[in-house]
Amino acid sequence: MEKREQLYEGKAKKVFKTDDPNLLIVSYKDDATAFNGEKKGTIAAKGAVNNRVSNHMMSLLEKEGIKTHYVETLNDRETLVRSVEIIPLEVIMRNIAAGSLSKRLGLPEGTKLSVPVLEYCYKKDELGDPMINNYHIKAMGLATEEELQVIESMAFAINAFMTQYFKTVNIELIDFKIEFGRTPEGEVILADEISPDTCRFWDTNTNEKLDKDRFRRDLGNVEEAYQEVLKRLLGDH
Amino acid sequence: MEKREQLYEGKAKKVFKTDDPNLLIVSYKDDATAFNGEKKGTIAAKGAVNNRVSNHMMSLLEKEGIKTHYVETLNDRETLVRSVEIIPLEVIMRNIAAGSLSKRLGLPEGTKLSVPVLEYCYKKDELGDPMINNYHIKAMGLATEEELQVIESMAFAINAFMTQYFKTVNIELIDFKIEFGRTPEGEVILADEISPDTCRFWDTNTNEKLDKDRFRRDLGNVEEAYQEVLKRLLGDH
Repeated sequence: MEKREQLYEGKAKKVFKTDDPNLLIVSYKDDATAFNGEKKGTIAAKGAVNNRVSNHMMSLLEKEGIKTHYVETLNDRETLVRSVEIIPLEVIMRNIAAGSLSKRLGLPEGTKLSVPVLEYCYKKDELGDPMINNYHIKAMGLATEEELQVIESMAFAINAFMTQYFKTVNIELIDFKIEFGRTPEGEVILADEISPDTCRFWDTNTNEKLDKDRFRRDLGNVEEAYQEVLKRLLGDH
Repeated sequence: MEKREQLYEGKAKKVFKTDDPNLLIVSYKDDATAFNGEKKGTIAAKGAVNNRVSNHMMSLLEKEGIKTHYVETLNDRETLVRSVEIIPLEVIMRNIAAGSLSKRLGLPEGTKLSVPVLEYCYKKDELGDPMINNYHIKAMGLATEEELQVIESMAFAINAFMTQYFKTVNIELIDFKIEFGRTPEGEVILADEISPDTCRFWDTNTNEKLDKDRFRRDLGNVEEAYQEVLKRLLGDH
């Protein structure tokens, strides 16, 4: 596999072409941003942690029958993935109220939701990624009804698996954000990443936050939290 | 029917008990508010216009098989309605982008939506009536899945009828907000009002606004716009 020119640089990742048009290389950065880019910083070794955590989770999900873009880990920070057309939706699954949901609906952080809540946000930095619903998505032509049905069913399956899985390492999965892409054949598969950047993880016993909220809220021990998640998932190696 | 004590005073209406526990009297005020109560004013004769417009629309909808809370017009400003438990949702139907949708999604006002868009907002002044989706509604126990299905199907039927009806009087129905209530028997029926306070009406030929946006945006001729809607629907009487 030959790495070719950079296709795109995002807030936390770079994406490169390869000599195979169906494959891309994702390179995870240590850069961290929050509040739609207003807060910027660096979290030491974050790229390496997120690369390993995300590939671990995608591998597990593949075994559960969830199709993902993951192909192969190349090195510490780089991973080979399938080239997909990203559907411009942030798909958020919530089990416990936190963050923007708590603020918007007046539900104290930590309130258990009686049913998991799925939210869509329109990926558009200039608009601040506004929340939208299925009707907006159809009216704007962002995804078809059939694609939304696949996305919803995959999102709930991913949530069910991950909630149970993280419990086994003493982590409560509060909420997470995922993204989906269309393959050249039109199949919808899981893309982007699953990491402490995109999930809220609370220690089951202490409720200590083990995710990007440590950076967003200046809670300290940011790097240590990311390392702790990696250690719980993959042990000391 | 005997009018008894005031039960509630809202931004645009007062509600009174009657000697029949199943019936209430709604009294329309001339007070106008906007932007979650930040802007306040009075629109001369608004209460009388809204009372007549809303009762006219509810009567037409009843003939279309849509159950409403409307019972009988009592006088210029007062109407007898069925007592219902209001479901705390603003149900918004949109045909053409305007107002908060345009701002949120970056769609210029006047953009035709390829399909009608339904939105729910949680009626909660302290939170600024935030937009929510079916999952939030279920998680917070605001309505059941069955009730939401009834609400959605009624909202689309109301929109289809009203869009056609207003075209006959040269008015484009841009969007509107409705509310629903539960009868003591648990049936979901249309409640609240349908008026230039709760709908966006644009003249079909000139795009002139004939609704509360004239007040919100200080466009002048506010009272005249309300009277114009009444005149187009009910003639000069």
